[in-house]
Amino acid sequence: MTHKSMSTEAMDLLHSIASRRSFIKSAAATAIAGGVFSACTDSQAQKSLMRKKDASGGSTAPHPAHVPVAVTAAAAAEEMDRMHEAGIKAFPAKTEGKGNQLLNPRIEKGLKIYEVTAEKIQWETEPGKKVEAWAYNGQVPGPQIRVREGDKVRLVLHNKLPESTCIHFHGLELPNNMDGVPFITQPPVKSGESFTYEFTVPAGNQGSHMYHSHHNAAKQVGLGLLGAFIVEPRRPRNIEKADVDYVMILNDGMHGYTLNGKGFPATEPIKAKLGQKVRVRFMNEGMMIHPMHLHGMHMTVIDKDGWAQPAPWKCDTLNIAPGERWDVIVNCNNPGVWAFHCHILPHAESEHGMFGMVTALIVE
Amino acid sequence: MTHKSMSTEAMDLLHSIASRRSFIKSAAATAIAGGVFSACTDSQAQKSLMRKKDASGGSTAPHPAHVPVAVTAAAAAEEMDRMHEAGIKAFPAKTEGKGNQLLNPRIEKGLKIYEVTAEKIQWETEPGKKVEAWAYNGQVPGPQIRVREGDKVRLVLHNKLPESTCIHFHGLELPNNMDGVPFITQPPVKSGESFTYEFTVPAGNQGSHMYHSHHNAAKQVGLGLLGAFIVEPRRPRNIEKADVDYVMILNDGMHGYTLNGKGFPATEPIKAKLGQKVRVRFMNEGMMIHPMHLHGMHMTVIDKDGWAQPAPWKCDTLNIAPGERWDVIVNCNNPGVWAFHCHILPHAESEHGMFGMVTALIVE
Amino acid sequence: MTHKSMSTEAMDLLHSIASRRSFIKSAAATAIAGGVFSACTDSQAQKSLMRKKDASGGSTAPHPAHVPVAVTAAAAAEEMDRMHEAGIKAFPAKTEGKGNQLLNPRIEKGLKIYEVTAEKIQWETEPGKKVEAWAYNGQVPGPQIRVREGDKVRLVLHNKLPESTCIHFHGLELPNNMDGVPFITQPPVKSGESFTYEFTVPAGNQGSHMYHSHHNAAKQVGLGLLGAFIVEPRRPRNIEKADVDYVMILNDGMHGYTLNGKGFPATEPIKAKLGQKVRVRFMNEGMMIHPMHLHGMHMTVIDKDGWAQPAPWKCDTLNIAPGERWDVIVNCNNPGVWAFHCHILPHAESEHGMFGMVTALIVE
Repeated sequence: MTHKSMSTEAMDLLHSIASRRSFIKSAAATAIAGGVFSACTDSQAQKSLMRKKDASGGSTAPHPAHVPVAVTAAAAAEEMDRMHEAGIKAFPAKTEGKGNQLLNPRIEKGLKIYEVTAEKIQWETEPGKKVEAWAYNGQVPGPQIRVREGDKVRLVLHNKLPESTCIHFHGLELPNNMDGVPFITQPPVKSGESFTYEFTVPAGNQGSHMYHSHHNAAKQVGLGLLGAFIVEPRRPRNIEKADVDYVMILNDGMHGYTLNGKGFPATEPIKAKLGQKVRVRFMNEGMMIHPMHLHGMHMTVIDKDGWAQPAPWKCDTLNIAPGERWDVIVNCNNPGVWAFHCHILPHAESEHGMFGMVTALIVE
Repeated sequence: MTHKSMSTEAMDLLHSIASRRSFIKSAAATAIAGGVFSACTDSQAQKSLMRKKDASGGSTAPHPAHVPVAVTAAAAAEEMDRMHEAGIKAFPAKTEGKGNQLLNPRIEKGLKIYEVTAEKIQWETEPGKKVEAWAYNGQVPGPQIRVREGDKVRLVLHNKLPESTCIHFHGLELPNNMDGVPFITQPPVKSGESFTYEFTVPAGNQGSHMYHSHHNAAKQVGLGLLGAFIVEPRRPRNIEKADVDYVMILNDGMHGYTLNGKGFPATEPIKAKLGQKVRVRFMNEGMMIHPMHLHGMHMTVIDKDGWAQPAPWKCDTLNIAPGERWDVIVNCNNPGVWAFHCHILPHAESEHGMFGMVTALIVE
Repeated sequence: MTHKSMSTEAMDLLHSIASRRSFIKSAAATAIAGGVFSACTDSQAQKSLMRKKDASGGSTAPHPAHVPVAVTAAAAAEEMDRMHEAGIKAFPAKTEGKGNQLLNPRIEKGLKIYEVTAEKIQWETEPGKKVEAWAYNGQVPGPQIRVREGDKVRLVLHNKLPESTCIHFHGLELPNNMDGVPFITQPPVKSGESFTYEFTVPAGNQGSHMYHSHHNAAKQVGLGLLGAFIVEPRRPRNIEKADVDYVMILNDGMHGYTLNGKGFPATEPIKAKLGQKVRVRFMNEGMMIHPMHLHGMHMTVIDKDGWAQPAPWKCDTLNIAPGERWDVIVNCNNPGVWAFHCHILPHAESEHGMFGMVTALIVE
């Protein structure tokens, strides 16, 4: 066999932050290769791929039409490899800000109180790529809220955005006046105002839910007003007990293709030790499906939208549609660095290397 | 708590037809705000959202490029709220024509005879928005046909369209010469001609099916040549017995994003009393997936394409792909007006307010 | 009844190769009718349909804007029928090259050895439509590989492409260094180089899997570097035993909408005798969902990604997302020629007739 194992080397690289800088530089210096991709065929399908890549905002390449044709195929091929390698070496690349951080409540007389402020921020999705975001508590996704069946919860929303907003608790079966739909269940929360949601988490309503804006939501959710709302059960089933409990929020709006608010190589690897169980809670806050594919091990699907499936079932590619949540268990019995990505390939890779909805499950 | 319940007020509003007029007027007067959305970012993703909204035909806004920039953020925010409110207040807005009406057969010697005429009509999808439709019996969707396992059925298709057509009974397992595919199972039915389909509904072939054109169908179905074909079982299962049996046909073609041929606010609310069971029969006649999300209560999925699932399962967001039918049961145990919409947000909301694939389940 | 059965006639036609030539000629001569479709409405949705058709590359029509308006509706309708008929009569149209052919291994001391060469070829997707493909062993899809649980396998990849490549065994749970992800598990295989994959197929990892490029994959897989990798179980379940075992690989990249590398009418019909069982192994190697609809008989879903579903379930339309594999059984109890197609209608039909993701299940 002519190959040698790269997995140890790759694992070392995963922790190298120095290499990130070279990736960013190379992305600018070599963007010219973007033209090669579009030159090899003039089909509309392929142009559309290019456009999708552009739409994700990940590219600083000049428009293909302005690229000199004199790049040789061999040089282009080398360049393509180099960009792919730089991306992998940069992973996980450091960026400013981390979303989906656990928010600890203030507790008053058994009431769990959360304060959430919506405001406009700058958000770094990939090294050097800053975008405007509308965020809860300065994070995209917003802070992760974890409560338990039967908990009494108060969530105070402060609106520092330039327009009205509102919070809908997607998946929670609350009294109608807590449902967060402007002009149907409450007035919109105007800029500068606050609004208090208060409810008891219904028994049986456990699982992976979400909170997000339900006002001008195609824009507001696209810009980042979303977060995980996890309801832990009073009596967990054996099948759902896991060593690592990981929330993965998919998005595809104005910030490009992201996992928890970041695009590869700035996405976060999931880490587990050999023999451990990882629970992944997929949540789609975007506008497109994302069939997430895990390499090396299968996923056992246990819950849909927080509800137990009648029987667990296995797959390696799970299609997650907008608004859906799916919970899966991975038995980490295969050591290595395993790619974990959306299998709509233009959401995950271009001639410039992997980008967007790519991360890794690292089993040590 | 700083909020007050709006649900009673909202329910009153649902029946106010007077407000509809103001909605239509306001839509024209305030369309200028359309430019604000596109001004706040120049990402291609967002432009694409705008285009989708335009494609649905719901907007009469001038092109963003022609909008003066001097609209202040505060005024734009107020205007956005006002448009959202007007949309909600207008719901359910009155429009001309109602699709999916039950068609009673003529019965001759135990044979159920249906006459269906395909012709070009004008169809009002939202207040003031008339489109060309190709319709069965002047309705989009066409009239709802309900038969029972084992029934003898004759359906006479009269073609008053400018081109040939044909009917395929999607989901029914008929003899090949009744399958409705031109040049494979029958000649196309020319303009001005008629064709008779006659068959016995197979035992076991119960459930939510469809009938639609299978000739030049990307155009003909897109323009409205489609309808529900329900086969009632001889012995209904307990789980499928419901107080309200509601067919919801999704479409996304030339008429924009529609539920039963209408876009919000002209969609029809589903009404139930507290404690009742509602059966929703989702049918997708469009070209895109639509993950339908119900607020406030979960859905129990019982059937796929008319076939019982091995075990019922629960969700709040159900992804429905083109050609699929899914039957769900909702136990209406939570009173209020509950939003019920496609969770691909640009199919349901824009800066102009909710539109397209939005309705409500009202539990009184 | 005014109709007569066409199914016998149609079956004869299916084997007429002579008619293919007239289809090709007519496609050129009558392309003018393409303008009629776009003239009947100016909605963006419809333009988008036209574009999709163009993107698939199936049309040689002049741009709608250049078509004289004087085509009468009646003539256009006749022309539309004629094109539809020509397409059906041409099916199954002969084209050069056949993908997905079973590859027999060389066996050395119990090791199954496969040699796979990746190179650039010309590939005929429909009669007269040649495209550039990047192919394994000159086929799109690449040759079908069938092994058994526990088999020792060696696959030697020879890279004759102008750039680096790599093979990922999608669905197989291999040691990390055999996973085929450049810079994570191995170096990319440079142009002119070879690479040897060698592994034991894990017990329990049976079913419908795939092998494909995982380097610059949005391009390389789109151009054809993909194939079926079937793992037969040591002890097949009764439910999976079938008389006909058919792999159907869906794709929607640079080659248009294809089933096993061909667009209708060059797709391959599936043939079975009355009473036989057909197993279809759907595999999606594209970028879009494809809800595959079978006429006349339902499908019983048994496996997802090679894993048994907890209980089989029935449907007539099965949504297959990128990267997914679904195995279904069809009990062929209904004789005739049954259309079998993607139910996203613009992936299957235009004013020019059926194209792309259409085939037939013929029960004799």
